[in-house]
Amino acid sequence: MAGTRVRALLFDVFGTLVDWRASVARQLEAFGRERGIACDWYAFVDAWRAEYPASMNGVRSGARPWANLDELQGESFDKLVRRFGLQGVTPEDRRWAVRRWHALDPWPEVPAALERLHPRYVLATLSNGNVELLVNLARHAKLRFDTIFSAETFGHYKPDSETYLGAANLLGFKPGETMLVAAHESDLRAAAANGLRTAFVSRPAEYGPAVPKLLQLPAGFDHVVGGLNELVSLEL
Amino acid sequence: MAGTRVRALLFDVFGTLVDWRASVARQLEAFGRERGIACDWYAFVDAWRAEYPASMNGVRSGARPWANLDELQGESFDKLVRRFGLQGVTPEDRRWAVRRWHALDPWPEVPAALERLHPRYVLATLSNGNVELLVNLARHAKLRFDTIFSAETFGHYKPDSETYLGAANLLGFKPGETMLVAAHESDLRAAAANGLRTAFVSRPAEYGPAVPKLLQLPAGFDHVVGGLNELVSLEL
Repeated sequence: MAGTRVRALLFDVFGTLVDWRASVARQLEAFGRERGIACDWYAFVDAWRAEYPASMNGVRSGARPWANLDELQGESFDKLVRRFGLQGVTPEDRRWAVRRWHALDPWPEVPAALERLHPRYVLATLSNGNVELLVNLARHAKLRFDTIFSAETFGHYKPDSETYLGAANLLGFKPGETMLVAAHESDLRAAAANGLRTAFVSRPAEYGPAVPKLLQLPAGFDHVVGGLNELVSLEL
Repeated sequence: MAGTRVRALLFDVFGTLVDWRASVARQLEAFGRERGIACDWYAFVDAWRAEYPASMNGVRSGARPWANLDELQGESFDKLVRRFGLQGVTPEDRRWAVRRWHALDPWPEVPAALERLHPRYVLATLSNGNVELLVNLARHAKLRFDTIFSAETFGHYKPDSETYLGAANLLGFKPGETMLVAAHESDLRAAAANGLRTAFVSRPAEYGPAVPKLLQLPAGFDHVVGGLNELVSLEL
């Protein structure tokens, strides 16, 4: 599809556009202080995130019926409350904690970069977050999209093909007229396998300071950028 | 649900937010002049719009599989080309004509009113237009939405309950926390029957100057307004 103009940018959200780790951990730290519940909340959030692929795979494999991300995150939260031995966590706390993923702060350049990309491309999320989460998140972080595409839109989680092809199809574009923008190689490889173009965004701080950085940026994608401002200055 | 705060506004689009009749007719008039195809293009557009309920009912009744609005509008266009005896209309003309419904101009107050409503409510379309059409239309008319809900999102056309309840559910709200804003009583009655709140917007010019205006505004809805600016000043 070289030479085909990109008409739509599809954005992965967690890690690519927003700093989920610090956003959730800071909110849980404040909760823990207020309620006297001691915990290494950064470790808790890292463990919560680590549950995420396995929880989706139960749906992806057909082992269980559809459950949206809020439901999966709630189940993972229960498991971690037990594993971390937290006492006094109420059902209302659980509901509140799950919704912290609806209020994530963007990486600094993201809101203004999306405004600059908007006149030139259709902008949409393509995220495993549920629609409600993504709508709340976009409003919280002031992220401009033309529409929200969620795993829930397609009844499939990424990296199932239905998500990438479904988004292109609903927008009326060929896969090669759309580009996935993501910080994760596996997501981008699946998009490329379905004919989408790809932009890797390097987010070395996603998993926190203790996680080793990539020694070299990945190859094999149409673009590799250090942030969305580099996309603004490219001809896609 | 009196006393429940409205959290999301769901907007019907054709006629409620945009002036489909003049927008499409003006574009077809220019096409006819350029191509030397004589027609009363306003009558053509009125007839095109008149085909719309019946074309959807084929899908709603189960008589045919899902077809999105662009497909239905294309079939109706073919029928009208024959009925109006138009000569020399090519397949490319057909495709272009169908896409005129993606480039409709808003009623004058709409873009600024949506910007003013956006901080207070989640804003979404709830339209029988397909996703591609609605994304293109929102970009053309500069209409601010948090997300696009289309008949295509739910595999059902309005007034099927799946559309009203599906939109509330995806946003995580109870039906009574959402309000349908529409210029058509039948749409609003179906929304109310499913527990949504309702705002009737009077658009006396929707069907053109020859169509008699309502002698009195309808009763039975939560709000009856002359335009979106009146919604801005209400506590919903």
